[in-house]
Amino acid sequence: MSDQVEWAVHCCTVLATLGDDQALPAARLAEFHGVPPAYLAKALQSLTAAGVTESRPGPQGGYRLARPPAEVSLLDVVLAVDGEETAFQCSEIRQRGPAAADPDSSSYRRPCGIARAMWKAEDAWRAELAAVSVGDIVGELLVSVAPAQLMKGAEWIQSVHVSRRKRP
Amino acid sequence: MSDQVEWAVHCCTVLATLGDDQALPAARLAEFHGVPPAYLAKALQSLTAAGVTESRPGPQGGYRLARPPAEVSLLDVVLAVDGEETAFQCSEIRQRGPAAADPDSSSYRRPCGIARAMWKAEDAWRAELAAVSVGDIVGELLVSVAPAQLMKGAEWIQSVHVSRRKRP
Repeated sequence: MSDQVEWAVHCCTVLATLGDDQALPAARLAEFHGVPPAYLAKALQSLTAAGVTESRPGPQGGYRLARPPAEVSLLDVVLAVDGEETAFQCSEIRQRGPAAADPDSSSYRRPCGIARAMWKAEDAWRAELAAVSVGDIVGELLVSVAPAQLMKGAEWIQSVHVSRRKRP
Repeated sequence: MSDQVEWAVHCCTVLATLGDDQALPAARLAEFHGVPPAYLAKALQSLTAAGVTESRPGPQGGYRLARPPAEVSLLDVVLAVDGEETAFQCSEIRQRGPAAADPDSSSYRRPCGIARAMWKAEDAWRAELAAVSVGDIVGELLVSVAPAQLMKGAEWIQSVHVSRRKRP
């Protein structure tokens, strides 16, 4: 799993707290999380391509969640950033070597038992990630993080909006 | 997940069919599966380091399973080849940036909620892989692969042993 998955989930958590008329540019999200802007921008573009976030143009523009936080799952974020492919890739090595059958053998009609077991495990992983939303993560933060720290984050985000509105 | 995981599980499946006095060298396992010998050798060394396979010296030597096939899980093989680390790595980015609290803040005592959700999903993945043994994979092969093809594989493996015994 790429580092950007971690960053992307954190970004979605921050974006979940924005007001209806607010958005945050990639550079500010990178600053807030202390991560490299160029790599984060790529992850945010992937999130937007997947319909998890949307990008608003203009001086008050930037990224927002494209859906309510309760409707963005961790799986949505992971697949947007790392791609839809399964971690286990079956290269059909059963069809190679001296014991291989004809390519059209009935033995190859079903996926290999090894691949099926691997993919079943990945389905379980995906089901767990699909069951947790960005809204759940925000809810958990609100009860587990010290109020003073939550305020510090909220104030920084609001200061970004205030300073952007003041621009000529 | 690395390609070698696929190769390693296939190798374990073949090793599960060997008689008590039999072993297969890495080069023969690579030949059987049509995969690059050097990369496969590395995977087999990892399996041996993890106690999944064992390496017997001598002219009749080679790799064997170190335990009965029913006691080698797919999880054992995956972790042996790809390492014990979780796919999701938490870099504690919550402790960076302008909203971070003091490093000894109570907010950081528990792992981040994002990391916990990611690791819970990985636990589900691991549980599925732990529940499937190499013995299960062999059992599934025996009922799903055409008998003629199973025989072809078994004959090739036996021919290796016969040719090795004939060496001066």
